Amino acid sequence: MAQLFKKDEKFFNIFSEMTVHILEAAQLLQTMLGTPTVDQAPLAQKIKDLEHKGDALTHHVIDELNKTFITPIDREDIQRLCSALDDVIDLMDSVAKCIVLYKIKEPITAVPEICSVLLSQAKELGEAVSVLRNSDNVIAHCIEINRLENEADQHRQTAIAALFDHVKDPIEVIKRKEIIETLEAATDKAEDVANVLESIIVKNT
Amino acid sequence: MAQLFKKDEKFFNIFSEMTVHILEAAQLLQTMLGTPTVDQAPLAQKIKDLEHKGDALTHHVIDELNKTFITPIDREDIQRLCSALDDVIDLMDSVAKCIVLYKIKEPITAVPEICSVLLSQAKELGEAVSVLRNSDNVIAHCIEINRLENEADQHRQTAIAALFDHVKDPIEVIKRKEIIETLEAATDKAEDVANVLESIIVKNT
Amino acid sequence: MAQLFKKDEKFFNIFSEMTVHILEAAQLLQTMLGTPTVDQAPLAQKIKDLEHKGDALTHHVIDELNKTFITPIDREDIQRLCSALDDVIDLMDSVAKCIVLYKIKEPITAVPEICSVLLSQAKELGEAVSVLRNSDNVIAHCIEINRLENEADQHRQTAIAALFDHVKDPIEVIKRKEIIETLEAATDKAEDVANVLESIIVKNT
Repeated sequence: MAQLFKKDEKFFNIFSEMTVHILEAAQLLQTMLGTPTVDQAPLAQKIKDLEHKGDALTHHVIDELNKTFITPIDREDIQRLCSALDDVIDLMDSVAKCIVLYKIKEPITAVPEICSVLLSQAKELGEAVSVLRNSDNVIAHCIEINRLENEADQHRQTAIAALFDHVKDPIEVIKRKEIIETLEAATDKAEDVANVLESIIVKNT
Repeated sequence: MAQLFKKDEKFFNIFSEMTVHILEAAQLLQTMLGTPTVDQAPLAQKIKDLEHKGDALTHHVIDELNKTFITPIDREDIQRLCSALDDVIDLMDSVAKCIVLYKIKEPITAVPEICSVLLSQAKELGEAVSVLRNSDNVIAHCIEINRLENEADQHRQTAIAALFDHVKDPIEVIKRKEIIETLEAATDKAEDVANVLESIIVKNT
Repeated sequence: MAQLFKKDEKFFNIFSEMTVHILEAAQLLQTMLGTPTVDQAPLAQKIKDLEHKGDALTHHVIDELNKTFITPIDREDIQRLCSALDDVIDLMDSVAKCIVLYKIKEPITAVPEICSVLLSQAKELGEAVSVLRNSDNVIAHCIEINRLENEADQHRQTAIAALFDHVKDPIEVIKRKEIIETLEAATDKAEDVANVLESIIVKNT
């Protein structure tokens, strides 16, 4: 199978940086959701900073594409991959904002579990991108990311069932339901990255 | 117009199988939503089985693409079509899960109508894919699928208006609103498949 | 940089017409949301008419693509751009429907601000498409559309916080939250158009 990127490839380095940001954001989110006694606002701010870095990298990719004559894979796939990675951070940022905005101060049933799945996906994304250079074994990581998404979906169901069983205040139900669903949507976005990676491999095989 | 797939084309067969699963899931969903006195859990389980089959077919397509040197249409379009078909089943599975999880035991106004539109779309999808082999008349089916989506949207509005007029318990409103919206989202996903089919025809004309 | 479309290019004209409809719909929406004392139903009907025109143009593009041998940019990008523009109108139509359906009679905190951002995006979209013919400066408009989306997101947060602070009836919270979120989703769709435009520029540079 062809080697898609050279060792010093600038696009490859941008994707790697993105996955480092995703991993860091997932770890921050886990702290926010697992130990709600911590001061949440500064952690949400750190995730917001990572989200801004993601936006900057996304625009940087466009600039680089416009300056580059020959690209290692199709130009639009480079943009699509970068944009899909950026979406994962965006959703994590949305969750962090919600936690602060809704003043969520106690753990929500099954939500730390979803976050832990997201953290596993973040690690897999990092590995999938790191092996993308040689287009080696990427599919195996993608399948694992999809499997993890199914796991997150199971936890979401548990979380929603517990929510309706134990929380009686409709306003609280609305707030917590949004956090559960947005967090699960982040795991969907990780799956979208996996799909983009798979389609890149499929096209370049 | 070119014949896109040969009669024994493996990708064509996978798409056909997908549409058969979609039709079966839509029929099961209609039973669940139209006659809520039936035992819902086993029907939801059957839809879940179809959803797993859809996932398996999606991964099978990736494997086949990696083993196939020349494909009848662009490799990424094959993956995109398969993934769009899979999304329709995923949303139906989400609705079925909600019905069980939220213990919905009585019909929701206008929801059987949305489900009946979805069933019509499922039939159209089957026909659109079956004529895709000769790229004959696909667009007509796509237009009908889009028209049906507009119909589903009208029913959704009726359903939501009836919900706010007749249901006073906010928790019940939240639960039923989610079922109405997820079901309508399934008809949106059918429209997404139609859009992918249209773009395949447009590219290969 | 290449001139992507000729002056009399039919596809270019369709995109231009789309952005005119988007601008008109955004202005109607601003009237509906800023001065809820006006009779809302006729304004919602006008937006619905624009939405139908958008659908008609989208199908017209497919027809034209099927009749056209050589296209100025990739066929699928023409369809993708048209479909992304159509999505912006669709979401505005959803907001207009909600306002009528939910009988929203008083302004919602920060919602006129989101609508005003959407109006700015509509103007930027018109300019981005008008310079697309020469592929000149499109990226600058896209960056501005993205920046505006971040602004809309800030307003959405303010709106949601105000909602939970001041509205105690859960049913009212559900209704207004949907309007806030759908309106903000329209600004996301404008950003999606900007992303499609960027990818077209990237591919054709």
